Amino acid sequence: MDRNAPIGVFDSGIGGLTVAREIIRQIPHEPMVYFGDTARLPYGSKSRDTVIRYALQIVRFLKTQNVKAIVIACNTASAYALEAVEKEADVPVIGVVRSGAHMAAQVTRSGRVGVIGTAGTIKSGIYRDTIQKFRPETEVFGKACPLFVPLVEEGLWHDSVTEEIASRYVSELKGKFIDTLVMGCTHYPLIRSTLRKVMGENVTLVNPAYETAIELKHMLEEKGLTCEKTPKEKYQFFVSDQAEEFTSFAKSILPEEVKETKKIDIEEF
Amino acid sequence: MDRNAPIGVFDSGIGGLTVAREIIRQIPHEPMVYFGDTARLPYGSKSRDTVIRYALQIVRFLKTQNVKAIVIACNTASAYALEAVEKEADVPVIGVVRSGAHMAAQVTRSGRVGVIGTAGTIKSGIYRDTIQKFRPETEVFGKACPLFVPLVEEGLWHDSVTEEIASRYVSELKGKFIDTLVMGCTHYPLIRSTLRKVMGENVTLVNPAYETAIELKHMLEEKGLTCEKTPKEKYQFFVSDQAEEFTSFAKSILPEEVKETKKIDIEEF
Repeated sequence: MDRNAPIGVFDSGIGGLTVAREIIRQIPHEPMVYFGDTARLPYGSKSRDTVIRYALQIVRFLKTQNVKAIVIACNTASAYALEAVEKEADVPVIGVVRSGAHMAAQVTRSGRVGVIGTAGTIKSGIYRDTIQKFRPETEVFGKACPLFVPLVEEGLWHDSVTEEIASRYVSELKGKFIDTLVMGCTHYPLIRSTLRKVMGENVTLVNPAYETAIELKHMLEEKGLTCEKTPKEKYQFFVSDQAEEFTSFAKSILPEEVKETKKIDIEEF
Repeated sequence: MDRNAPIGVFDSGIGGLTVAREIIRQIPHEPMVYFGDTARLPYGSKSRDTVIRYALQIVRFLKTQNVKAIVIACNTASAYALEAVEKEADVPVIGVVRSGAHMAAQVTRSGRVGVIGTAGTIKSGIYRDTIQKFRPETEVFGKACPLFVPLVEEGLWHDSVTEEIASRYVSELKGKFIDTLVMGCTHYPLIRSTLRKVMGENVTLVNPAYETAIELKHMLEEKGLTCEKTPKEKYQFFVSDQAEEFTSFAKSILPEEVKETKKIDIEEF
């Protein structure tokens, strides 16, 4: 395995850039190839079979980029396709769900944890199952929030409408007296301040993007895969559609300059 | 051409069911094959090339169903792919955009028309171009409303949040003193009462779904393609994903019973 090879990160679209951002912050010398499946997004409302099929096509594409590890930055794909991706890939795989679930199990004091995410992520029950693997007696309450992604993509990060919708979505969870809330979709950290406001100060917000970057860092160190010679082209971005729109969104999210995004036909893989 | 063959109707997903509903109301004896591309929806945020590629795959599928005419029930596909579909199909093709644009040009008194739709439909300028073909001096003002589809799909058809978002979206159009507003996305007739409320009584709302059904009826009559013997299985529904969810949404929209929806792999076509 080439320790100077890039990390492969993929998502259904732009949301995974919040994971890429944390990776850039935590391990800034590591090269990265990012793929966003913008021609087929969103994954959150699609079926398990379809999401698995899409994820495997992406893994086959990432293999052509000789990645040394794969990060599934999409919660839905991580929920449905982690095992399938591990089988297909011949490199270590990290999914955002496992990292986020691990942290939630560690920080909850009351053992009552809320999870918000897309319909697919919540329906899969993956956060509940994974949190309970780390800490069996935890009670986990899920709530699908399908409007958050379009609200974020419409730029309403700090807006009364987003706050109203957030209040409705979390009222059920507040009634369960949770002390920890997992932001189980990559878009949600962008409305963190609204979530903080509607949940109150006593609930710990878990950001799986951050936990994933930390886990990735440790994994690379343990396996002797940390980069020793950063290549010239440190970051590469690929999408299946809307390359220009992706570039401009990426510029607003990432601390490093995003020069260009290449469009590929993912159905060929 | 077999006059008893079905009409092929396609959309990016469930929105085109509002077009199917109008067809069922206007020509209830006609058989229909509906395809919803639920594995790749929405189209509204995708590029021209991608939408054309998807539309051509769907036409190739519809050909296998021996359809006698094709209705592009998706505004975005109609905007980007009408010509390409006409070339690929060997049967008459009707797109919602042309039907809606034709009616808008007829009903406006002031010659100032507003159009609301997805980002793709508005960016294409197709409604402006088509309305001006029918009535060159018309001024057409477009406004993309990306949150309407998710709000409709979340069931918030009559809700204060939808009204607040609608008010923001149309305020620009109201400032243009339009007297006609085209609901340029198949989901929008489902929030017609909210649009009526925020636009006021003096603006005529044009529903391209209705106009499309009327145009289809006339076209079948003119070409001698009206069905004379309705087959046993009058309506057939196909999707690329989420067949069960589609069936339950279709039941809430359509006046006729929807028994089952078949899932196909559209990428094979």
